[in-house]
Amino acid sequence: KFLQHQSVGLIGVPFSGGQGKKGVDQGPSRMIAAGLIPQLEGLGWNVSIDSDFEKFLQLNPQGLDTTIEQEKLRNTWNVAEATRETALAVKETLSNGKFALTIGGDHSVAIGTLSGTSSVYDDYCVVWVDAHADINTPSTTSSGNLHGCVLSFHFGLDFANSVEGFEWVRPTLSPNRLVYIGLRDLDPAEKLIIKYLGIKAFSMHEVDKYGIGKVMEMALDHVNPKRDLPIHLSFDVDAVDPSEIPSTGTPVRGGLTFREAHFLTEYLSETGLLVAMDLMEVNPALGDIKAAEKTIQVANSLVRTTLGETLL
Amino acid sequence: KFLQHQSVGLIGVPFSGGQGKKGVDQGPSRMIAAGLIPQLEGLGWNVSIDSDFEKFLQLNPQGLDTTIEQEKLRNTWNVAEATRETALAVKETLSNGKFALTIGGDHSVAIGTLSGTSSVYDDYCVVWVDAHADINTPSTTSSGNLHGCVLSFHFGLDFANSVEGFEWVRPTLSPNRLVYIGLRDLDPAEKLIIKYLGIKAFSMHEVDKYGIGKVMEMALDHVNPKRDLPIHLSFDVDAVDPSEIPSTGTPVRGGLTFREAHFLTEYLSETGLLVAMDLMEVNPALGDIKAAEKTIQVANSLVRTTLGETLL
Amino acid sequence: KFLQHQSVGLIGVPFSGGQGKKGVDQGPSRMIAAGLIPQLEGLGWNVSIDSDFEKFLQLNPQGLDTTIEQEKLRNTWNVAEATRETALAVKETLSNGKFALTIGGDHSVAIGTLSGTSSVYDDYCVVWVDAHADINTPSTTSSGNLHGCVLSFHFGLDFANSVEGFEWVRPTLSPNRLVYIGLRDLDPAEKLIIKYLGIKAFSMHEVDKYGIGKVMEMALDHVNPKRDLPIHLSFDVDAVDPSEIPSTGTPVRGGLTFREAHFLTEYLSETGLLVAMDLMEVNPALGDIKAAEKTIQVANSLVRTTLGETLL
Ligand SMILES: [Mn+2]
Ligand SMILES: [Mn+2]
Ligand SMILES: [Mn+2]
Ligand SMILES: [Mn+2]
Ligand SMILES: [Mn+2]
Ligand SMILES: [Mn+2]
Repeated sequence: KFLQHQSVGLIGVPFSGGQGKKGVDQGPSRMIAAGLIPQLEGLGWNVSIDSDFEKFLQLNPQGLDTTIEQEKLRNTWNVAEATRETALAVKETLSNGKFALTIGGDHSVAIGTLSGTSSVYDDYCVVWVDAHADINTPSTTSSGNLHGCVLSFHFGLDFANSVEGFEWVRPTLSPNRLVYIGLRDLDPAEKLIIKYLGIKAFSMHEVDKYGIGKVMEMALDHVNPKRDLPIHLSFDVDAVDPSEIPSTGTPVRGGLTFREAHFLTEYLSETGLLVAMDLMEVNPALGDIKAAEKTIQVANSLVRTTLGETLL
Repeated sequence: KFLQHQSVGLIGVPFSGGQGKKGVDQGPSRMIAAGLIPQLEGLGWNVSIDSDFEKFLQLNPQGLDTTIEQEKLRNTWNVAEATRETALAVKETLSNGKFALTIGGDHSVAIGTLSGTSSVYDDYCVVWVDAHADINTPSTTSSGNLHGCVLSFHFGLDFANSVEGFEWVRPTLSPNRLVYIGLRDLDPAEKLIIKYLGIKAFSMHEVDKYGIGKVMEMALDHVNPKRDLPIHLSFDVDAVDPSEIPSTGTPVRGGLTFREAHFLTEYLSETGLLVAMDLMEVNPALGDIKAAEKTIQVANSLVRTTLGETLL
Repeated sequence: KFLQHQSVGLIGVPFSGGQGKKGVDQGPSRMIAAGLIPQLEGLGWNVSIDSDFEKFLQLNPQGLDTTIEQEKLRNTWNVAEATRETALAVKETLSNGKFALTIGGDHSVAIGTLSGTSSVYDDYCVVWVDAHADINTPSTTSSGNLHGCVLSFHFGLDFANSVEGFEWVRPTLSPNRLVYIGLRDLDPAEKLIIKYLGIKAFSMHEVDKYGIGKVMEMALDHVNPKRDLPIHLSFDVDAVDPSEIPSTGTPVRGGLTFREAHFLTEYLSETGLLVAMDLMEVNPALGDIKAAEKTIQVANSLVRTTLGETLL
């Protein structure tokens, strides 16, 4: 309903600085090598590559950086640059009436993708699919990893937007325009923030209680009651159970099944309201070769379903 | 309600000509070796063997035949003979008031089983449990494998019944007497045929959306609204997830769970309307020994549940 | 609502005499070694160890005793002593206003735990989570294992309470105060007893039919309609699927998923009515090291959820 033509801009963001594990920067190239582009073309999409991979690779932090500096966020400069670059790419793609498909890279990149979407669709809403809430603030995070702080920037929490380098990020989300699905591993501070802001969250408990069919209906009823707002799907693959998605940085048991994950993406696709998708945290360097291949296949399959592939 | 006594005729059809992989002809002997007959007797059934296994084994195509002849269906003569033989056996068993339990072999055998059932119960309906729709026509099939064309013969599509050797197959099904459960891998032409004929299909998407309990109720409401028609269950084991049924020729991820498959068969059993079951596509030659044993155990368990085994 | 303070008495019962496999007596020590106590303290509980492990270890039958004596129950003296000891410990813990957390050991120990609970809360009800019904009587059991006869003592069936050594066990349960969840492997006599007594049972068939959310609601509506009775949860880990809980003595396929099991415990916890939990049949000696570790982790996680850990 919002796109001007059936074109998708593939914004690969091979960036790993929002967390400490190398390899997540291989996500975009590996998913493309596994055939993502012709697969999308087979669904009738015109596919263009709308980002400069090399630019992001050069923004990856050098050295191992496995130690956390005292009281500090990790790699703020790198993340600020990479997300600003991402925001520009997403804005450009959406401005051209295309679907913005961002392939990460770690989830910190979504600081950029949501910014880009908000600058074109200011009434957008977000479906955040993740085992984690990614809503720590610069002061509550214990790891210092910015991929766990993304939403604090978009809600303007706790001076996040005053962190050096991130002054350009405007808080554009109101709490009723975000819905979580798949949560199961939250820090105590995150639980408090979610309650305080009144954000609607469907954890795995609710998926079990109601079934994924009902959960998706309730999620959309909350975040998009008239089914008239553009939707940005931010999909962290660790939402899916590690038995299906082993190669990711922070796996958590008890996740969405292969089928539930596909139901979710197919359901969103059927609304006709999607304008952007982030597919984040595929890390082919974790686990053995088979694990990586499985992860990449499932990830590509989730992208295809989001972009219209159906069973029948 | 239709059987005259609690007797089941076991019609083993060790035939593999409807597709290209050797080994599916070992299905009946391996399931029997794993104790199927005493298991059914333990449920109170009188079991007779109502087919000549040797006859089918001799109909299996010689040579590897892994190359597809141009523009041609594979092994038409073999499949025509095997299915005609199967139809006669099923007809004989049902005529004697027994339950017809056909153990494949590949799913092409169902060209015969449905024919046999239709000749005794002309108002029968079919529950087709499969990852695939098996409704390609001789002209739409890309593989040339007849196990993927079964239903085009029963609906009389696209001159299927004029293929040499298959003139004896009468189209006996109307589209509202078939329901699919478990679909998740269809060719584009098959999707069109299903829409055109208006066949009711519950893909894995619907199983996720409604749950298997509701799906079974809706499936029966459609195909057997007054719960008074005899039911033929045609069960391709690839409907079940490959994690439970690894040893089958065309596995597809995201299938029915062990529990859903058993719920389905228990539900049908409880109707008291079943007259025939096909249990097809167990191929013990695929995967390692453990995979084959697991597959056979689950297959036997599904037969038992169909024939009345319950949890409570 | 019933506890006087947030204190839990951990009653470890390293006893294996209710069945024939060594190793189940390592359950308590292994679960504690994996961090159970600090984990519960992290949830705000005051934890005390309220049993003498050594006493139970000495009650374990010597020798292998894998042969069943003709027409006899196994190890009656050992089981009678161990369960009487357990009953005293549970009674003491509950009398002090604490939550009674019994860690087995085999499920025969619940002859003692329910006795203990009944002596403090005479209007208690029981949620029995198990693949098995454990309701054989001394005359119907074919194995002679007392872990399969527990409930016949509490219902006073078939002279169970006249077995030498068990005269102290008073039948304190009425059939409407027990509900089963997870059943899938029952002896014919057990099915009859359940029907005859009219006990409400949710087998895996019902879990599939209604979903775990609805099942829990129906289970509590039956056993605790006004939500005012104290609840004793007796959790045999074999209720959970063997893919999650491999290290247990009598695994049965098609069990509760990791998520369903946690939903169940979280649901009961939210009632605020729990006074006691048995966590039984963890046997770290079965399967390889990884299997045992996985089992212990899931078991500890189920205890935590029962005692208030939530996802959000
Ligand atoms: Mn995550
Ligand atoms: Mn994330
Ligand atoms: Mn199939
Ligand atoms: Mn088939
Ligand atoms: Mn059990
Ligand atoms: Mn038990």
